[in-house]
Amino acid sequence: MTQFDARNLSMVTDLYQMTMANGYFADGRQDDWATFDVFFRKNPDGAAFSVFAGLEQVLDFLEGMHFDERDVAYLRSLGLFDERFLAWLGTFEFRGCVRAMPEGTVVYPNEPILSVHAPLIDAQLAETAILAQVNHQSLVATKAQRIVRAAAGRAVSDFGARRAHNVDAAVYGARAAYIGGVEGTATVLAGQTFGLPVGGTMAHSWVMCFESEYLAFRRFAELYPDNAVLLVDTYDVLESGVPNAIRVAKKVLEPRGARLAGVRIDSGDLARLSKETRVLLDAAGLEDCRIVASNSLDEFTIRSIVEQGGCIDAFGVGERLITAKSNPVFGAVYKLVAVNEDAACRPKIKVSETFDKITNPGRKRVWRVNDARGRAVADLLTLADERPDREGARFSCVDPRKPWERVSLAGCAVRELQRTVMEQGRRVDPSPALEDVRGYLMRQLAEEVAPEEQRFENPQNHPLLMSRAYHAMKMGMLKDACGLR
Amino acid sequence: MTQFDARNLSMVTDLYQMTMANGYFADGRQDDWATFDVFFRKNPDGAAFSVFAGLEQVLDFLEGMHFDERDVAYLRSLGLFDERFLAWLGTFEFRGCVRAMPEGTVVYPNEPILSVHAPLIDAQLAETAILAQVNHQSLVATKAQRIVRAAAGRAVSDFGARRAHNVDAAVYGARAAYIGGVEGTATVLAGQTFGLPVGGTMAHSWVMCFESEYLAFRRFAELYPDNAVLLVDTYDVLESGVPNAIRVAKKVLEPRGARLAGVRIDSGDLARLSKETRVLLDAAGLEDCRIVASNSLDEFTIRSIVEQGGCIDAFGVGERLITAKSNPVFGAVYKLVAVNEDAACRPKIKVSETFDKITNPGRKRVWRVNDARGRAVADLLTLADERPDREGARFSCVDPRKPWERVSLAGCAVRELQRTVMEQGRRVDPSPALEDVRGYLMRQLAEEVAPEEQRFENPQNHPLLMSRAYHAMKMGMLKDACGLR
Repeated sequence: MTQFDARNLSMVTDLYQMTMANGYFADGRQDDWATFDVFFRKNPDGAAFSVFAGLEQVLDFLEGMHFDERDVAYLRSLGLFDERFLAWLGTFEFRGCVRAMPEGTVVYPNEPILSVHAPLIDAQLAETAILAQVNHQSLVATKAQRIVRAAAGRAVSDFGARRAHNVDAAVYGARAAYIGGVEGTATVLAGQTFGLPVGGTMAHSWVMCFESEYLAFRRFAELYPDNAVLLVDTYDVLESGVPNAIRVAKKVLEPRGARLAGVRIDSGDLARLSKETRVLLDAAGLEDCRIVASNSLDEFTIRSIVEQGGCIDAFGVGERLITAKSNPVFGAVYKLVAVNEDAACRPKIKVSETFDKITNPGRKRVWRVNDARGRAVADLLTLADERPDREGARFSCVDPRKPWERVSLAGCAVRELQRTVMEQGRRVDPSPALEDVRGYLMRQLAEEVAPEEQRFENPQNHPLLMSRAYHAMKMGMLKDACGLR
Repeated sequence: MTQFDARNLSMVTDLYQMTMANGYFADGRQDDWATFDVFFRKNPDGAAFSVFAGLEQVLDFLEGMHFDERDVAYLRSLGLFDERFLAWLGTFEFRGCVRAMPEGTVVYPNEPILSVHAPLIDAQLAETAILAQVNHQSLVATKAQRIVRAAAGRAVSDFGARRAHNVDAAVYGARAAYIGGVEGTATVLAGQTFGLPVGGTMAHSWVMCFESEYLAFRRFAELYPDNAVLLVDTYDVLESGVPNAIRVAKKVLEPRGARLAGVRIDSGDLARLSKETRVLLDAAGLEDCRIVASNSLDEFTIRSIVEQGGCIDAFGVGERLITAKSNPVFGAVYKLVAVNEDAACRPKIKVSETFDKITNPGRKRVWRVNDARGRAVADLLTLADERPDREGARFSCVDPRKPWERVSLAGCAVRELQRTVMEQGRRVDPSPALEDVRGYLMRQLAEEVAPEEQRFENPQNHPLLMSRAYHAMKMGMLKDACGLR
């Protein structure tokens, strides 16, 4: 756990988790175990897939869970809880197991990204913080991946701290954006906490604090000859900013053997201004000077700029990345799927008037199915004790949207997506390096995820199949559910 | 500062603040003072006004600013900064003054909500954290106020932690929502940290962990006879949930002299279900049983439910409040408006190709203008040394959108909005109690803010006037600005 994380966040929980926990404790059920699945129902922005992020912080949280004297005193003051429960809470440690997909996994609706198998109370008390972390980081990683995709090879950096929903949103948002593929962040604390590359040079205020734009640029170039990116839109990009930047490159930097690293345009028509800026820079022999653009960018404005032939080498993306403005809610939920009763594990289903809100019951396994060319063509749910054979030929599945068809996995490779990451409240392995998480996502996008799923408009749907046995179990439970009232 | 806040957040800053600070330091300008205004350009959701929140945390941050050894070592590792600057940074304390409107003030675009008068370096290093705090809390307070307004007297509670953009967003978001008028929060840490009322009873998982819905309700009612709110939609609201709740009220609670506090509906058609639930409850003599509704609510769904005659006593609002989903960016900016040069305070203006992005230069005062009936009819900017006379009769203003007209304040009362809240890096007074902040907002909305400004559709615009002298100064600077290139 990093220095920045070292707060007691165990009270990040909804009050109803406490009232339920107190109830289970009163009934002597503090050692009853249950399983909860984390999944989401819909990708943001009409996409075909999302990116899972936040697992490392979930494990940090679970390992650190405890209620200190002040916490217990506060809870006592609410007048809701039994003293024996409060005493027990003072000794609480999370006792559960967690199975999860690796961070950076491309994920699809309705499949368990993360499953908590734990005493019912432990699982309830952890729900809110797990969801807040997974929802936030998956939201930003997913958005970042879209923006990076639109930039088509050009660099993207996170400039969002000032518009983030407070400090954690800036810091963990920068982490998630890095998983999603941005090159770095402007947020110093995120760089310090996670070792992310940090960048940034000057604001308009720097230019305004000198007698002239030229003097401001000159002084900055003297101070940072090797990496000055001059902000050229304080007065007028083409009439003033770029000519002054060129003058500084020629008069200040070149005599020292240095080159102007870049110029940044933060307003106006970025497509047009960048093209005209490129012409001016090239005419001055500054072909290596990069053009950075910023100002309310997202995947759609970036794609438009790229399509118009805008000459931009790097994008600084702020509010629309760090808040995922177009769709700022990642709706992962945490649903009870099984309880242990009389030493047996009994699946549970939540029915709903809304078809899409019916849960997938029971402890289960989730698999990715790749075709012979290595493309991921579907995901698959099976019972916890089922294992499709690697060739898939003899494994019979159902697409629950078309249960009358028989789906064969012949010729496909199948790999399990969840791994055990925590046992008895302790991490099984150290979390992977952020670089590796990011690289894993990049590999999936380059090699596995169909280009048709990566389209922004009407992407191809990724089926979630079920084994025949799993599907039969779910259908049986649905039929029985009406009798439970 | 609360326990939860006691992190060193000084590194919550954009890297360019550091590169600029290092530059000013290198030029011996570490004691040059400047003034920055925080303002926003556009209200979220097409509204006429917003609500200012987050000041207390800004002052906490400024009082706590420091860079410890690890911070300095990290900055050194970037290879950008002069050793003398780093040594100086190790002794850094914020030296500035802050003038600000009180938290809970109804605020309008383009007026300074908060002004920092400080050494240039101090002001730059604090920018990012000030903006992140003001933007986040003002966003959520503004959204909460809209939702509370739509609920038209019915209670609203924050249920949003699981969808918040991480922990701070949940905790400070709950604080801001309380300022905006919600009754309380489900987030325990927010209750503990800020003394907010907390609430919450059961999730679907509770119901699913018993043999039947009736047994789940019965046990909960036994545990919490005085404040049980039973979640009635796990199976079927009208066929199962409400009848079971009534049975519990009659068989479990009434024999003990207790009453059923409420039922909660979390899915389906809330307008219809709540009306039919009300009929069932009333027929059973449970007229005092409250109906709570939740499920992706915001001001628009709530208004629709109210208009349809939905029988809902309290709304639990989650993701659309805590992320301000319809407009999740509060775009406050922090702009240089003056620098002290040669012992004189020199105003600065940022010009732009976009008319709305031109700043209001110089140190200034901002006033609220109330008509004879007490309605706030306009806000007013003046030079820092101007004071409109209280009657306003002899004070001549300009509406900058119609500078050819003469605007009289005759018969109006004028009060200054900003107060000095920090001097030489220290709070002038303790921050007010959250109750008082919330009450101040409620009073403004009840007494001052025109109903036409409180409309959701096409609200009436609130003019930002300028004194003749202020307007003349700004126009003069704009004319001169072209010469600065």
